[in-house]
Amino acid sequence: MSQGHGRGRRRGRPDTRKTIVDAARSRFLEDGYHAVTLRSVAADADVDIALIGYYFGSKKGLFGAALALPANPAELLADLLRSGDHSDFPERAARTVLRAWDDPRTGPELLSLLRRAGVDGSLSVLLREVLEAEVIRPLGALLGGSDAPQRAASFSAIMTGLVTSRYLLRLDPIASMSTEDVVAHITPLLGQALRGPGRTRRPPAATV
Amino acid sequence: MSQGHGRGRRRGRPDTRKTIVDAARSRFLEDGYHAVTLRSVAADADVDIALIGYYFGSKKGLFGAALALPANPAELLADLLRSGDHSDFPERAARTVLRAWDDPRTGPELLSLLRRAGVDGSLSVLLREVLEAEVIRPLGALLGGSDAPQRAASFSAIMTGLVTSRYLLRLDPIASMSTEDVVAHITPLLGQALRGPGRTRRPPAATV
Repeated sequence: MSQGHGRGRRRGRPDTRKTIVDAARSRFLEDGYHAVTLRSVAADADVDIALIGYYFGSKKGLFGAALALPANPAELLADLLRSGDHSDFPERAARTVLRAWDDPRTGPELLSLLRRAGVDGSLSVLLREVLEAEVIRPLGALLGGSDAPQRAASFSAIMTGLVTSRYLLRLDPIASMSTEDVVAHITPLLGQALRGPGRTRRPPAATV
Repeated sequence: MSQGHGRGRRRGRPDTRKTIVDAARSRFLEDGYHAVTLRSVAADADVDIALIGYYFGSKKGLFGAALALPANPAELLADLLRSGDHSDFPERAARTVLRAWDDPRTGPELLSLLRRAGVDGSLSVLLREVLEAEVIRPLGALLGGSDAPQRAASFSAIMTGLVTSRYLLRLDPIASMSTEDVVAHITPLLGQALRGPGRTRRPPAATV
């Protein structure tokens, strides 16, 4: 209100945080996810690199803040993999994605980001790189075994299809199905994706 | 070239076809897929309704022409369901979608349509309606049994995820996988989607 905002250096913590976020956003959009280092952002923002760790924890955290992500897929995945036993991972993953997108505080912002990525080339590249680096690759590493990257990619493709169908295109009936109904239909697909084609058991009867 | 294009009524067949296509495009974008009748397009274009049947066969065909679709999902599905035996429907469906999107003559145009649908509200509604009316609903009717609409929607969501991941976001490894590799990973997912959760057999071991 009565605080004068001069042209000099930022003085308090909120300004420092914002300066870092602004520098990170520019760097990510210009250079992509892989090329950005915490060191380069610290230099751009003219702050000590330790401050970035203090405010954002990691590159993932900085990325989420830079894009003002209300729900950071990388951090959601990390949480999912850390907690609980792994046998119900597909179901917990489906619930986590649905929760983030159904929530009126986070869903609309995620949708807006997805829409912009469709027409904004550098945002689309950034989204691709972060999904590859922070979701598909870690999940593949965890799965192990033959075809692990392809199985992780199939898993990611189902999630992408769920989000695009339910929230972007709003296709019926998937847009109007209850959370429980979506979870019931998507969980077996996610499980099948993680198992991969080598562990498919074909039904004896015709499929359609 | 030397033909004068006056302001009077169109004279030849190419002009008539184009007049119908233009009228249909306006109608579809204004009114959506459901509300458009061949009769209303014929009236707008000032032609006999029989001419629309002659040029385009059906509302599906007219829609494909109006959006200059190089590969019309509704017609691809109709072809798929007409031909062959149904046990390999998931694999044939996967191959058909990949063929349309990998083909340099049709893929870029489909991608451009998808990108525009992300930011153009009326195009997005139109795409939703045509997928519901011409893909999800006919597939659900064919499947029959409990949850048929949800199973058809899950099938459609996987295809949407495949297309979005491989062609729009170009996520690795799914963007760089060979057609055969994608078919091998996606076909069991499509089969599982059509069977639905009632016919899932969970593996005894942990999934991740």
